[in-house]
Amino acid sequence: MQPADHLQNMSPSYIREILKAATAENVISLAGGLPAAEHFPMALLQQPLQQISQSPELFQYGATAGYQPLLDFCAEHYQLETGNSGLITTGSQQGLDLIARAFLNPGDGVAMEAPCYLGALQVFELAKAELFTVEQSDSGPDLVALEQLFAKGNIKIFYAVPDFHNPTGRVWPLAARQAVAKLCQRYKVGLIEDAPYRELRYHGDALPMVSSFCPEQAWILRSFSKIALPGIRLAFISGPQNWIDPLIKIKQASDLHSPIPLQALLLGLLKSSEFNNHLLKLREQYAERYQALSGALDKYLGDKISFQQVEGGMFLWLELNQKNDQPINTMKLAERALENNVAVVPGEVFYPVGQLSRPALRLNFSHASPQQLEIAIQRLVKAFDRQ
Amino acid sequence: MQPADHLQNMSPSYIREILKAATAENVISLAGGLPAAEHFPMALLQQPLQQISQSPELFQYGATAGYQPLLDFCAEHYQLETGNSGLITTGSQQGLDLIARAFLNPGDGVAMEAPCYLGALQVFELAKAELFTVEQSDSGPDLVALEQLFAKGNIKIFYAVPDFHNPTGRVWPLAARQAVAKLCQRYKVGLIEDAPYRELRYHGDALPMVSSFCPEQAWILRSFSKIALPGIRLAFISGPQNWIDPLIKIKQASDLHSPIPLQALLLGLLKSSEFNNHLLKLREQYAERYQALSGALDKYLGDKISFQQVEGGMFLWLELNQKNDQPINTMKLAERALENNVAVVPGEVFYPVGQLSRPALRLNFSHASPQQLEIAIQRLVKAFDRQ
Repeated sequence: MQPADHLQNMSPSYIREILKAATAENVISLAGGLPAAEHFPMALLQQPLQQISQSPELFQYGATAGYQPLLDFCAEHYQLETGNSGLITTGSQQGLDLIARAFLNPGDGVAMEAPCYLGALQVFELAKAELFTVEQSDSGPDLVALEQLFAKGNIKIFYAVPDFHNPTGRVWPLAARQAVAKLCQRYKVGLIEDAPYRELRYHGDALPMVSSFCPEQAWILRSFSKIALPGIRLAFISGPQNWIDPLIKIKQASDLHSPIPLQALLLGLLKSSEFNNHLLKLREQYAERYQALSGALDKYLGDKISFQQVEGGMFLWLELNQKNDQPINTMKLAERALENNVAVVPGEVFYPVGQLSRPALRLNFSHASPQQLEIAIQRLVKAFDRQ
Repeated sequence: MQPADHLQNMSPSYIREILKAATAENVISLAGGLPAAEHFPMALLQQPLQQISQSPELFQYGATAGYQPLLDFCAEHYQLETGNSGLITTGSQQGLDLIARAFLNPGDGVAMEAPCYLGALQVFELAKAELFTVEQSDSGPDLVALEQLFAKGNIKIFYAVPDFHNPTGRVWPLAARQAVAKLCQRYKVGLIEDAPYRELRYHGDALPMVSSFCPEQAWILRSFSKIALPGIRLAFISGPQNWIDPLIKIKQASDLHSPIPLQALLLGLLKSSEFNNHLLKLREQYAERYQALSGALDKYLGDKISFQQVEGGMFLWLELNQKNDQPINTMKLAERALENNVAVVPGEVFYPVGQLSRPALRLNFSHASPQQLEIAIQRLVKAFDRQ
């Protein structure tokens, strides 16, 4: 039986292959976007788990939008704007997929930054959207290019990760946030503000969310994978009520609802008086890992690479300096790194197929320990040397 | 922002409305397909929950196909054919949705019985499939009509619930099983054998699955909602490996994977030495409820209705006898029943929009207690009397 045509559009899942290889025992992986399991808040789970074990009603079918006490908590905690509502999804990935399924017709235009989160690329390709990218710099997305795109009239959605972007780690400055909100309002483009790393800031002050300047024109995706636990697969998506209701309709047909016992578990965790301390400690631990990684990069690869310091998130974007205009094959480089037992992701997989990219590698620093990170870079040096 | 065009195709979710109304405190609901929460195997959950609470690795990201020990258990327990494989989904509903997304192009033909499970209707409508129905009787689906449909050449998938059909409760006899398998093979139609109620047999002997006669031509959907716990949202879907791999690709883009802690919990439950006893007891309890319902129907409504006895499942299909060829409005009847504090589902919602149906009601007997079921029918009588 032939798979559907749109399955042919999907980007090859190179990252799935590399993640599989990266699980070999002697490989240090800087490839995935995995949190550190040794820092999961297991102690804070004990009491909520105990409660769940005595609550058969949590194991019954539930409402599609989510477990009401968790929805209420999120609405208050995130101070939802009047007229906005939310639902619980199986990770932000499902939130994205629901938006694409509920709002995109084949051929509708979607704008995104390049490079871009791979899971978003896949979702929009599956929806047969037409993808347009704008470049990104330290001042945020290229606003001139973005307005030109919007002005053409076919862009329905702009997908953005303004805080600690995946894969570049960049944060949009305030001016870019205000300008993008204005553009979305002027051209009636729906903004998806994907904010999985927003609460992982290690230095400096948080900036207002882009959607706070255009709440009537945006969805916000908040993941609990990075601050709580990824294996429970829970996220909260909010936006104008008539932008949320169609998502609930699609979710009902796609899986009825996300598991209630885990929604109750998450609520117990978020309400725990110790949760804030967990978050403070987590930020310290990840900051330490980032220091270990950036220190090792300076020490061992200083002349071959350049990178912008990041203030949070999980990723560092390593730009490779070409010598004598000789092109660098980052796919080959990642393969050689894997032969040396360190897994990294070549930058080009974060671009739509066929699009030109500057040579770069994405390095994750949340999963490996500080000691492993230093060893990983020593191994990476060998891959560079064999180039 | 306008929702996508295919959202307009979706059947109005009458059932969602009635289920909402049915949760009012003084209403006895025979409307949903809810298991009895008071018979959930809570005691058997305690040890697995304890183990999970000590296993941070279960809260990490996992593989898209599922938690490997659970996949291994299912492969052995359900004796997967050589060349077949499986994956864990967020309920059978997601399994269905994944098949539709991975294999259907807009306009592809899907055959199903009428009446039919509403969640399947929604999934195929969302995929913009062209729906064709065949009638069902005690001898199974109308084989002549089915072959005529298949012979036209546009049918890619046949969706079927051969054991304790939702909504009719019917079981296909052996001859129909063999004949449908042959037709699927001859015309290269993919069979979806949806089997959520198969293990809820209260009398008589189980028949071989339809897919056992055409394993190279079928997906099997096995839900854990009815035999274990619906709130954990887990199911196992199996089929030829190249019919499963595309589902994994779509699932990766749609939610990465189903939650690992609950997959470990389910495995602990299924492996418990007491699980089989739980299942035996559950069948007795549901059989008792069915007796209460069918007894009350005979007693209070004998001349106004007719129904086939069922040997398992959760539903009874009540056909209404028209008097003097006066048409019966089942929607109105269900509304009046709700005014009398009993919720039932009018039969016509189980047909594609606009399709003719004979007057009937679907009654669930797994959720309400035997005492409640008798009271519910007394209330239903009043709705009939006001007709």
